[in-house]
Amino acid sequence: MIARTYNKGLLVVISGPSGTGKGTVCKRLLEKHPEIKLSISVTTRQPRKGEVEGKNYFFRTEQEFKQIMEEGGFLECAQVYDSYYGTPKKYVREQMNAGHDVILEIDIQGALKVKERFEEGVFIFILPPSMEELRKRITGRGTESEEAILKRFQSAYQELDFMNRYNYVVVNDEVEAAADRIAAIIQAEKCRVDRNHHINEQLLGGVI
Amino acid sequence: MIARTYNKGLLVVISGPSGTGKGTVCKRLLEKHPEIKLSISVTTRQPRKGEVEGKNYFFRTEQEFKQIMEEGGFLECAQVYDSYYGTPKKYVREQMNAGHDVILEIDIQGALKVKERFEEGVFIFILPPSMEELRKRITGRGTESEEAILKRFQSAYQELDFMNRYNYVVVNDEVEAAADRIAAIIQAEKCRVDRNHHINEQLLGGVI
Repeated sequence: MIARTYNKGLLVVISGPSGTGKGTVCKRLLEKHPEIKLSISVTTRQPRKGEVEGKNYFFRTEQEFKQIMEEGGFLECAQVYDSYYGTPKKYVREQMNAGHDVILEIDIQGALKVKERFEEGVFIFILPPSMEELRKRITGRGTESEEAILKRFQSAYQELDFMNRYNYVVVNDEVEAAADRIAAIIQAEKCRVDRNHHINEQLLGGVI
Repeated sequence: MIARTYNKGLLVVISGPSGTGKGTVCKRLLEKHPEIKLSISVTTRQPRKGEVEGKNYFFRTEQEFKQIMEEGGFLECAQVYDSYYGTPKKYVREQMNAGHDVILEIDIQGALKVKERFEEGVFIFILPPSMEELRKRITGRGTESEEAILKRFQSAYQELDFMNRYNYVVVNDEVEAAADRIAAIIQAEKCRVDRNHHINEQLLGGVI
């Protein structure tokens, strides 16, 4: 019998303060590793033009959403204005069992909820290379008022403290390097002894 | 101020049952990553032809060796026949401080001693892809008696249990892939939050 280290997928939660560029890093990671899947949320809001069921979102009625919630089917869920959003366990599990890593890009509050329900996930905190750079990135969006920018910056500031609840920290100094670090983390996590207690049995099963 | 994740070197202890090919994997890893250094042992035995002080070994008298030992200067040491061998903390620390990862390829007994004295090391257990393959590799050396081979195989068998004392397990199915997994583990370890508690201060130091 051939011994193999953990060969299912992992749930990789990528999170961090607003403005650290985690979206761009995730996009680059998925481009480089097409076998990695992005988590797909369930939402009660109406599909926008071009959005595809099962690709951008799983669109459900409020009643359907609440039923999934009652059945404990979400890793996390939240209400934003009049709509609900949630990360369905089922989709994540299916992808993982098929050997695909699943990336969940999510804010810190959401990530901490996921951690309560899915301890075996890999929790990665994305940091900006400096607070000056973060300020530039937030300001650079050019879509928000002075006040909104200041608020966003202050909240990013406070959010740094949550790093200690994560497993890894990746500084987004260059998108390419940051994406490569995440890929290395995924590869390394599959070699962790904690995820490979089966392997001795596999090896010994072959000779007993 | 620019935030950087852990940028010193790591001590990477590579170990596992006899016959798993850990030497070949380490050699490939060092070829691919010349910035990684191999740990150099102190020994009391005479230099063989071609062996260079400070490259192959640090050659010391028995008295000098014992003094290092008394000063707690070894990560581990052992007597083999009439000679002593030890892994000097000083060299490892110097290389690490200069930013070089240090590979220590060592048997299981030695690795466990290092773990007691250097918890922050990264402990990697190399496994053969199968016990049949391990038997082939041990037999294939062709330098040992039937009895010696059997003994080696049985001891490899028992040594599998020690995997749980390590952080990572790497199956040496292909040398190239195994070396790449170790490189990924090293990269990932430097991103562990546990090794990066300084980074928030670094970031905040830049704006306060």
